Amino acid sequence: MLNFELKNPTKIIFGKGQIANLAKELPQDAKILLLYGGGSIKTNGIYEQVKTALDGFDVVEFGGIPANPEYEVLLEALKVIKEQHITYLLAVGGGSVIDGTKFLSAAALYEGGSPWEILTKSIKTEKGMPFGTVLTLPATASEMNSGAVITRAETQEKFSMGGPGLFPVFSILDPQVVASIPQRQLANGVTDAFTHVLEQYMTYPAGGLLQDRFAESIMQTLVEVAPKVIAEPTNYEAAANFMWSCTMALNGLIQKGVPGDWAVHMMGHELTALFGIDHARTLAIVAPSHYRFNFEAKKEKLAQYGKRVWGITGDNIDEIANEAIVKTEAFFHSLEIKTTLSEYTEDYKGTAEKIAGRFTERGWLGLGEHKSLTPANVQQIIEMSY
Amino acid sequence: MLNFELKNPTKIIFGKGQIANLAKELPQDAKILLLYGGGSIKTNGIYEQVKTALDGFDVVEFGGIPANPEYEVLLEALKVIKEQHITYLLAVGGGSVIDGTKFLSAAALYEGGSPWEILTKSIKTEKGMPFGTVLTLPATASEMNSGAVITRAETQEKFSMGGPGLFPVFSILDPQVVASIPQRQLANGVTDAFTHVLEQYMTYPAGGLLQDRFAESIMQTLVEVAPKVIAEPTNYEAAANFMWSCTMALNGLIQKGVPGDWAVHMMGHELTALFGIDHARTLAIVAPSHYRFNFEAKKEKLAQYGKRVWGITGDNIDEIANEAIVKTEAFFHSLEIKTTLSEYTEDYKGTAEKIAGRFTERGWLGLGEHKSLTPANVQQIIEMSY
Repeated sequence: MLNFELKNPTKIIFGKGQIANLAKELPQDAKILLLYGGGSIKTNGIYEQVKTALDGFDVVEFGGIPANPEYEVLLEALKVIKEQHITYLLAVGGGSVIDGTKFLSAAALYEGGSPWEILTKSIKTEKGMPFGTVLTLPATASEMNSGAVITRAETQEKFSMGGPGLFPVFSILDPQVVASIPQRQLANGVTDAFTHVLEQYMTYPAGGLLQDRFAESIMQTLVEVAPKVIAEPTNYEAAANFMWSCTMALNGLIQKGVPGDWAVHMMGHELTALFGIDHARTLAIVAPSHYRFNFEAKKEKLAQYGKRVWGITGDNIDEIANEAIVKTEAFFHSLEIKTTLSEYTEDYKGTAEKIAGRFTERGWLGLGEHKSLTPANVQQIIEMSY
Repeated sequence: MLNFELKNPTKIIFGKGQIANLAKELPQDAKILLLYGGGSIKTNGIYEQVKTALDGFDVVEFGGIPANPEYEVLLEALKVIKEQHITYLLAVGGGSVIDGTKFLSAAALYEGGSPWEILTKSIKTEKGMPFGTVLTLPATASEMNSGAVITRAETQEKFSMGGPGLFPVFSILDPQVVASIPQRQLANGVTDAFTHVLEQYMTYPAGGLLQDRFAESIMQTLVEVAPKVIAEPTNYEAAANFMWSCTMALNGLIQKGVPGDWAVHMMGHELTALFGIDHARTLAIVAPSHYRFNFEAKKEKLAQYGKRVWGITGDNIDEIANEAIVKTEAFFHSLEIKTTLSEYTEDYKGTAEKIAGRFTERGWLGLGEHKSLTPANVQQIIEMSY
């Protein structure tokens, strides 16, 4: 097991009807910027619940934060924060709205030059403007971690950012929101959370026996509840386990003391930037090829996963590991998630070279848990994903 | 799944050599009271490591906090805190030293009358004196939760206390400390942590699918590493997984959203108070009888545990559940932990009546996840444990 530090101060308020308790978490004298996305919260009743809970507070609104939160749109919100002397941010949405809010939390107190530096210079934010979240879409765990991914549409690029000052002060998770989420986004949420776990688990064995079992627990639970969530989103028990699994998949716990891979995300982000493919779906495209390409390094873990998560029996490590990849693809297919790039775009030729070229340009010369995956390897993996 | 709130702000610093990083966690101007137990830290090298790391700080020492930290001894330490104007507490020890430090953290800032009230009036401490810990004995998870158990020798009683202000600011967990822990205490640590998980898991089924799997993960890991920890305490990987499992067993995570039982602890505490039997051993005495007595209510969970943790196969729920209890006893026996009261004392007759009488006196008329276990039931369970 590797040495680690863990500190996660976010207060989680989980369960039925918890949005009504929002006011208790906010300072009485806060000047609040309420941030949300495309407006679905206005049709599913969540906006009303939030507004009712905010009765008596000084609230300004900023809607229209898009999926893959765009820098340009966020700059508009930043202007509102400065002009209106906002002191507290409240994100009501999924990962995109929360990630955008994290950027704003950092940018609002940033004392350097352009806020663009936060992204390009990988500035770690030690102190941001305080913010809370009301989660409307389980998937990214942004509600309980300190990281965010921001897109710049102009240059088709995605940047990661974060820092210990960017944990939400609180996050309200009411599983009842799942009932109004479109099927496509539910499937994305399951796939996203499942792949988050894989990124932290499917490495060389590192002696994190408890971490491995926790990771397997999350994947087992997702496999168990996914069909119910998709078929019957009003099933509270399934929704609650789905929601909590998504949060635990990337709130930092299972990554402590073990190596992380994250190459699948690095490659997947490029497919979103280039083709606008949903984040979760890009992961499902890349992951199987990544595991096949890195089979020798990962086969012990693949076999452990195959046995424990998929119940594959037998003694031949290679066979079990291969079967585990096939089962993973089948799981994505069961969610109606396609796993090859050519099923999403006819324009896929040259993509592998292009992405490898971008990685070379950025100096991303070694990805994965050993930082050994070269741009040439990346090219091969993307080609295998066509 | 039940509604829940989760907030655990303790910073964990885990791994080899981490004690050397102690100074970074302490305010430069702190006046520190260094608290420890019977002095084993002076022979195993931990005291030296801590003192070296504290070089340059203003430190007062208070040693001699006994196992099952006694109110009378803690009052002496409280006097030192007041007289010396201490501003920060540092517990170097196991659960007893850390629990005692939590009482002091609460008592140092208590504005009521006698600090005794904190225990008898169940005062929830919202703000305590800040404290950190260096863990020397994995078992209780006191290093990452906000609860404590304090003993009053005079009246042979144990009291629980806690509150959101009693999380350690930080806890340093170096698994290398395991190498110098006596076998008896290692066996106690495994048993204590394992039973902590059982208390939060072995209830009626409550739809916490992920919580169940996390609980099973901890138990599976403890079962896997216990023989290695006992046979070879210098095995770092086993020690690290043991240490992290103990922390995760009672840091609050697995209890969120599910009911808790805790009747085994309530009964066990009395056996420690009456006979001085090690805390962990009292749990091993009571737990099997408790599960047999409440078999009908708990058999579904017992069977799930039997299948998943012990790999028991078959279709008959009753048989699997019974076998699971037998496996649990066998696990305790494998650690050389005896599971009947008469193996610890010849004086056991009348104990059941006495404990039932105490519970009646205190108004503890309904224990367990349904608050339905009466003093008469308690008497029967203790009698079954003779």
